[in-house]
Amino acid sequence: MMRPWNFSAGPSVLPVEVLERAAAEMLDWQGSGMSVMEMSHRGKEFMQILQEAEADLRDLLQLPDDFAVLFTQGGAQAQNAIVPMNLIGLKPGRKADYIVSGNWSSKAQQDATQFGHINIAASSAVAAKLDGREYKPFAWFPAVDTWHLQADASYIHVCSNETIGGVEHNEWPEFDVPLVVDASSNLLSRPFDFKNIDMLYAGAQKNAGPAGLTLVVIRKELLGAADATCPNVFNYELLAANQSMVNTPATYSIYIAGLVYKWLKQQGGVAQIEKANIVKAETLYGYLDQSSFYVNAVQRSDRSRMNVPFQLRDAALDSVFLTEADQRGLLQLKGHKSVGGMRASIYNAMPLEGVQALVAFMKEFEQRHG
Amino acid sequence: MMRPWNFSAGPSVLPVEVLERAAAEMLDWQGSGMSVMEMSHRGKEFMQILQEAEADLRDLLQLPDDFAVLFTQGGAQAQNAIVPMNLIGLKPGRKADYIVSGNWSSKAQQDATQFGHINIAASSAVAAKLDGREYKPFAWFPAVDTWHLQADASYIHVCSNETIGGVEHNEWPEFDVPLVVDASSNLLSRPFDFKNIDMLYAGAQKNAGPAGLTLVVIRKELLGAADATCPNVFNYELLAANQSMVNTPATYSIYIAGLVYKWLKQQGGVAQIEKANIVKAETLYGYLDQSSFYVNAVQRSDRSRMNVPFQLRDAALDSVFLTEADQRGLLQLKGHKSVGGMRASIYNAMPLEGVQALVAFMKEFEQRHG
Repeated sequence: MMRPWNFSAGPSVLPVEVLERAAAEMLDWQGSGMSVMEMSHRGKEFMQILQEAEADLRDLLQLPDDFAVLFTQGGAQAQNAIVPMNLIGLKPGRKADYIVSGNWSSKAQQDATQFGHINIAASSAVAAKLDGREYKPFAWFPAVDTWHLQADASYIHVCSNETIGGVEHNEWPEFDVPLVVDASSNLLSRPFDFKNIDMLYAGAQKNAGPAGLTLVVIRKELLGAADATCPNVFNYELLAANQSMVNTPATYSIYIAGLVYKWLKQQGGVAQIEKANIVKAETLYGYLDQSSFYVNAVQRSDRSRMNVPFQLRDAALDSVFLTEADQRGLLQLKGHKSVGGMRASIYNAMPLEGVQALVAFMKEFEQRHG
Repeated sequence: MMRPWNFSAGPSVLPVEVLERAAAEMLDWQGSGMSVMEMSHRGKEFMQILQEAEADLRDLLQLPDDFAVLFTQGGAQAQNAIVPMNLIGLKPGRKADYIVSGNWSSKAQQDATQFGHINIAASSAVAAKLDGREYKPFAWFPAVDTWHLQADASYIHVCSNETIGGVEHNEWPEFDVPLVVDASSNLLSRPFDFKNIDMLYAGAQKNAGPAGLTLVVIRKELLGAADATCPNVFNYELLAANQSMVNTPATYSIYIAGLVYKWLKQQGGVAQIEKANIVKAETLYGYLDQSSFYVNAVQRSDRSRMNVPFQLRDAALDSVFLTEADQRGLLQLKGHKSVGGMRASIYNAMPLEGVQALVAFMKEFEQRHG
């Protein structure tokens, strides 16, 4: 049976091979007689699952040895508070620089203000004229050479992919202060260079597993500065010292994430999946750019490979488009309410065939209604 | 094929019917073409799952309408900080009373000290002579009429079942300040009277689902007192106002918890499962009490129905016992290191047959080694 194509921004499509294996092992993981959900988190079976997941993730990310890997909970938004709780005390002034490039980094910046002196070092929350063209707020990324950084900040916070605006940026120079990246929606979709990144976090429910699991990788030299009011289970130093088991971790979510990592390695790893993601993105943007019926309004150099918002020039057709798409098994294409129109999220587990099916439908819809 | 009997203290055994249904629906939930893990948390499919889970939980708990139900993350230990962040500001003095009755409530008390003036109103962290018999620390529960409560406390915190000590207490009089109950390990195993309980929380991985999901039920009049530094995703008022969706919740864990609730209703609800739990506990304690080979050292009136720690009088036989038990499919019986010996956790999903199989093995082992 053909599965529909699921373009949800997250939680989102998972590799069918991962789901098949999870179903097959549900009552009996590898002869243990237990579901992974039933295992003591400190038993030898789950320890093997956890260690393999960490090793595979390190391998996929080519993570340097001086980074700790933490499997935690609460989602990326919990990190809006947990990052400053752990890091803003790195320097006595309790300052941090935030780059606001969309809804998620804006929320991160606002939430951080409870913990110290938060400086907006750059923001795309306003319209901009770039290379002679007008861009709406959050449809462009603030160029790094325009940032107003503070030399005595404890850290700089950026979001490498904004799912709502559909804006992505991944080139980070070397800064004098630690760089923290919210990579919730593009981790594992492309290589990350950890030379200039000091911490990275991601909700797993895009490219890396199910909702309810949050990944943190952090340079070990940043551990140990947490505020006394940081809950123990979210204290990075304690998490690192206890292999993510300050308390019971989200065991089944870690297991599923581990299966996703193994699937990704079978695909050839991050370098190969990046090639596939480039082809998928070019297929969809290429079609959008030659069409006068649809439009993607993001600055080309900042377009996300993961989340492609697009509008019908005639918004009155939106609901017809969504209904017909749904009938053809093209699911969850409705855009975020703050942007309107449509959004196709094309994460790692979305095959090229899914993108081609979407483009074929869009073309045919344009012919009927254009 | 016979599944082994899994006596893990948590994560722990789940009803086999729940696992079978989860496996069957893994690739396609009710004709949606999606795994529950792949669904947008705001889509109609997941909203149905969430609403049914909440309705079934309310029904099982007979929860009054003036309580909010929150599905959150981080485990019960995260609540050690999140409870005071949300509640200690209820009164200007920022005071709270903690009853220390075992390792978990002791940890909760220690973690809370960062947030206000934390009074240990009673503690069983010392040995006691009760009714002429000596009890070790944490092998008894401090009688309510011995508590030194403060009239101006923001709340009283208790743990209704201590998994390590194997101590359970569930009778709470009416207090003048809100009563907060950590019911991680006995929620849904017996009725709770919400007349005298104002908030209750529980990690789900004992009787109520998989690890990675934390349940909170709270009287709505207690909402709105959170500290400014409480992370938004753990702010009870925001969680209540957003149907637990301040951000993406642990969707799959909520789905599994919902299946457990439906299973529990099929068993006849909490009143029926309590009867079964009483029979299971009496089967095991009854055998222990007539044996001179094994001992359970907890005060009889405070014995847990859920977690039964027991020692072999000859600790030199511990490892033989564990090895042989394992060979017979009696898994995860090793006691917590702070107590030693064995521990059998016999949560809702452990059938009487499992307890009978354990007792039969214990009897036979006693005959060979006694």
